[in-house]
Amino acid sequence: MAAARLESVPDRFFGELPGLPEASAWVSRQEAAQAGVHRPTVGGISGTRLEGADSICVNGGYEDDQDFGDEIIYTGAGGNDPNTGKQVADQDLDQPGNASLVTSELEGLPIRVLRGSRGDPMYSPTSGFRYDGLYRVAEHWSEIGKSGYRIWRYRLVRLSEQEAAPYVPEPNLPPGTKAPKRTRGVATRVVRTTAVAESIKRLYEYSCQVCGAHLEVPGGTIAEVAHVRGLGRPHNGPDVPENVLCLCPNHHALLDAGGIYVNDDFAVHNHTGAQIGALTRHPSHQIDLEHLRYHRALWGQP
Amino acid sequence: MAAARLESVPDRFFGELPGLPEASAWVSRQEAAQAGVHRPTVGGISGTRLEGADSICVNGGYEDDQDFGDEIIYTGAGGNDPNTGKQVADQDLDQPGNASLVTSELEGLPIRVLRGSRGDPMYSPTSGFRYDGLYRVAEHWSEIGKSGYRIWRYRLVRLSEQEAAPYVPEPNLPPGTKAPKRTRGVATRVVRTTAVAESIKRLYEYSCQVCGAHLEVPGGTIAEVAHVRGLGRPHNGPDVPENVLCLCPNHHALLDAGGIYVNDDFAVHNHTGAQIGALTRHPSHQIDLEHLRYHRALWGQP
Repeated sequence: MAAARLESVPDRFFGELPGLPEASAWVSRQEAAQAGVHRPTVGGISGTRLEGADSICVNGGYEDDQDFGDEIIYTGAGGNDPNTGKQVADQDLDQPGNASLVTSELEGLPIRVLRGSRGDPMYSPTSGFRYDGLYRVAEHWSEIGKSGYRIWRYRLVRLSEQEAAPYVPEPNLPPGTKAPKRTRGVATRVVRTTAVAESIKRLYEYSCQVCGAHLEVPGGTIAEVAHVRGLGRPHNGPDVPENVLCLCPNHHALLDAGGIYVNDDFAVHNHTGAQIGALTRHPSHQIDLEHLRYHRALWGQP
Repeated sequence: MAAARLESVPDRFFGELPGLPEASAWVSRQEAAQAGVHRPTVGGISGTRLEGADSICVNGGYEDDQDFGDEIIYTGAGGNDPNTGKQVADQDLDQPGNASLVTSELEGLPIRVLRGSRGDPMYSPTSGFRYDGLYRVAEHWSEIGKSGYRIWRYRLVRLSEQEAAPYVPEPNLPPGTKAPKRTRGVATRVVRTTAVAESIKRLYEYSCQVCGAHLEVPGGTIAEVAHVRGLGRPHNGPDVPENVLCLCPNHHALLDAGGIYVNDDFAVHNHTGAQIGALTRHPSHQIDLEHLRYHRALWGQP
């Protein structure tokens, strides 16, 4: 059992800093670090696996980064030549900054984004560094980057005004009069339900294809349909029976975060490679092996 | 295994009907039924446990209903005297309409709301019936109503413009030129993460207090913290260690929907009353029995 005491709340600060609203600007990383907006003076990610990430810096240090303004495809840390931004080695998801962004996704933590002048000119300041508001990690995956090495990618999306509200201090408070509220995150899991999803749930009678769990509640049954290859950008998987599985919430969450994967023979493995079972399949439900392969590739599995 | 074929999509229609935008009005239930906005001519809920509910009618037929405009505390069907609106018997969650609203909550289905002139004067038409847009079921629970009988209550909240968009047909289409898209729902599970939640997760090392599940993924661990007595209206439970449990997503979803409950001796039971285990407890984590009792009362458990 953990030794942690209930009082041991992490003191990493999540959310907007009092007195430092969006568009606050600094001439150097050092000044931004002193202000607390992004504490590391070199690293792009401020965080640990245990606490999650409270801020990132986007400043052109990674050749695979893509900036769309309200959405950022951010590259994990490590394996790059800091001078050229080119990858020269594989990245590791256990690197503390990379793992911190996974924790932020799982916990729904708000992340401050600091943009520097070396980033995409469309969305970056012309000089120095600028605080650009709060984002969350919507998903992450791996792929082989431009230079041929495995990189981890995080899709960050800007919080809507409503989502950001709990993390933005009340305006017009005299600075320092009130300790900032240690609000943490609001994680939102969006479960899409489509006609395809409904028909697959019925086919399996709302039982999990991995573990057989059948979660009955008064008046209904809990089951989820997972898209093996995700819908929408960047995966663009189809909403067809061949691309979905009927799962319990646990195995859905595990599949989406790379905690399990399915081989071509429908054996189910955990992320360390150990086989944990075999997928239950209905004769009229064809699963497309290409989608299973796509999912395995995302998580660097064979 | 279910006999359902993949093509057997339900033909109950979810979402706004083409040509019938918000504020469309009818003089009688019969006319509204013919238009398809709410098909039953007497019942308040249109739906089945399997398909979910596609519409409800709010018209003063139940003394415990509460209308706040964008939020409605809706009473389940049954047990009332249709002339006075008074409850004269307990309600049953297995009643098809009541179960359909549970399915709508679990699946995130959009529900058309039809208001009649006998409802709350603040939000109801002065005569006849009016279509008032799309809502979703945010939660449900039971309590003893004004007349002393068990009623089921559903908190419906109006979909935001963004949430409603997939279910509202494109404007200016000539009526009948295009079959309405059979979009279903988008269920959003909001998992609040607070400092209290984080400390409890660490105390239990991210393992479920019901089943011991420890859901490791590359870079992180999946665990959720459930509030036994819910936060916010109408339960107003506190965000304190005494009111939370560290659970896997499956047992969190089950707890929230009344699929499991915890006795004063920390035995865990499923909704049929069978004991399925005992809650793992850390010596420094005091759980308030009053919150367990509040939760049991919500689900009509002893």
